[in-house]
Amino acid sequence: MTENRLERRKARTRAALVRAAQEFIADGKLNAPILEITQSADVGMGSFYNHFQTKEELFHAALEDALDTFGQVLDSLTGDLDDTAHVFAQSFRLTGRLHRRLPELSKVLLHNGFELTRSGKGLAPRARRDIESALAAGRFTVADPELALTIVAGSVLALGQLLHAQPDRDDAAATDQIAEDLLRMLGVPADEARDISRRALPSVAGSDVA
Amino acid sequence: MTENRLERRKARTRAALVRAAQEFIADGKLNAPILEITQSADVGMGSFYNHFQTKEELFHAALEDALDTFGQVLDSLTGDLDDTAHVFAQSFRLTGRLHRRLPELSKVLLHNGFELTRSGKGLAPRARRDIESALAAGRFTVADPELALTIVAGSVLALGQLLHAQPDRDDAAATDQIAEDLLRMLGVPADEARDISRRALPSVAGSDVA
Repeated sequence: MTENRLERRKARTRAALVRAAQEFIADGKLNAPILEITQSADVGMGSFYNHFQTKEELFHAALEDALDTFGQVLDSLTGDLDDTAHVFAQSFRLTGRLHRRLPELSKVLLHNGFELTRSGKGLAPRARRDIESALAAGRFTVADPELALTIVAGSVLALGQLLHAQPDRDDAAATDQIAEDLLRMLGVPADEARDISRRALPSVAGSDVA
Repeated sequence: MTENRLERRKARTRAALVRAAQEFIADGKLNAPILEITQSADVGMGSFYNHFQTKEELFHAALEDALDTFGQVLDSLTGDLDDTAHVFAQSFRLTGRLHRRLPELSKVLLHNGFELTRSGKGLAPRARRDIESALAAGRFTVADPELALTIVAGSVLALGQLLHAQPDRDDAAATDQIAEDLLRMLGVPADEARDISRRALPSVAGSDVA
C-alpha cells in the first residue's frame, strides 16, 4: 500500500513536470532553465532528476505525451468511419495542420522527429495500425508497411519544415495534396486518392492539444 | 589582380577547412575542437572565423559540399539514360545506399536534413530538376512538384533513420522498395514502378564520396 502510494506520488510529480514542459514548449520558452520549469510544476529540483536526466529528455517526454493525447483525439474522430483509407487520410490531414496551429510543438517535433517515428506512443503506432488495417481490408497495397510508414513519417516532418520555411503557403492545401500523393503511394487509385483527401474534416477545436 | 589573388587565397582556405571537416565527419569525430580542425587544415584559428561562425556551420558546409560532389557523380551516371523516371529512380536508389556506406556523413545529414532539403546545392535541386523533367515528359503526374520533392526528401531522411535503427535490415532492398513506392506516388503505374526500381545499378565505387 505504501509502495502504491509512493508510486502514485511519483507519477503525479512526473505528470506535473510533463504538463509544465508542455506549457513552456507552447510558449516557445525552450531555453528556460530547469529550475524555472520545476518551480512552475511546483516540484523540487531533486524530483526532476528522479525522472529525467536532462531538459531535452523532459521535452521529449512532453512532446510524446502531447502527441499521444492528439492521437486519442484522432482516434475518437475516426471511430465512425467505415473506409480504412479514409481513416488514414483524415488523421494525416489533421496531423499536418498541427504544424501551423501549434508551431512551437511542431518545432520540438522536427527537432526530435526521427526518434519519435520509432516511439511506441503517440502518432507513429497509430499510423502503423491504420496502414495495416487498410492493407488487411485490401484498400492499400504496399510490400512493406514499415517502409510505407517511413515515407509517411518523413513526409509529415518534411511538410512541417516546408510550412515553417514558407509562411505564406496554404497549410491545409499543402497537407491535403501530400495526403493525396501518399494515398497513391499506398496503392489507392489516383481519382479516389483525390476524392478521399478532399472530404470535409471534423473539428478538433475542443481538444486540449489542437 | 591583388584582389583576385586574395580572393583565390580565401577560397583555398575555405576549401581546406571544408575538406578537413569532411575527414572529421567521416571519422565520426564530430566533437573535435575547432583548433584541431584548423590544424588539420593547416590554417590559423583567425582564418576559421573569417569563413564560419561556428563548427556547426563548417560541418553544414562540408556536408553540402560532399552532397554536391555526390550529386555530380549521380549526374554523370544518368547522362545516358533516356527515361526520366529511370533517371530519378537510379539517383534515389544510389542516394539511399549512402546511409550505410557513409554512416557518419549520413548522421550529419540527418542532423541537418530539413535545412538541406531547401539548399540550392547538393541533392535537393537535382531531385527537383529530375522530378520536373519527368513531369514535362509526361512520366510523372503530380499536382505540385515541390510537395512531391518534400515527400521524397522526407523519405530519404526517414529511411536513413530506419537503417541506423535497424542495422540488420537490408539497406539496398529497403531503398529500392521505397523508390518503388515513391514512383507510384509520382504517378507511375505499379508494375512499371516495380520494374524501374529493380534495374541494375551502375557502380559508384571510384568516386570520392561513395
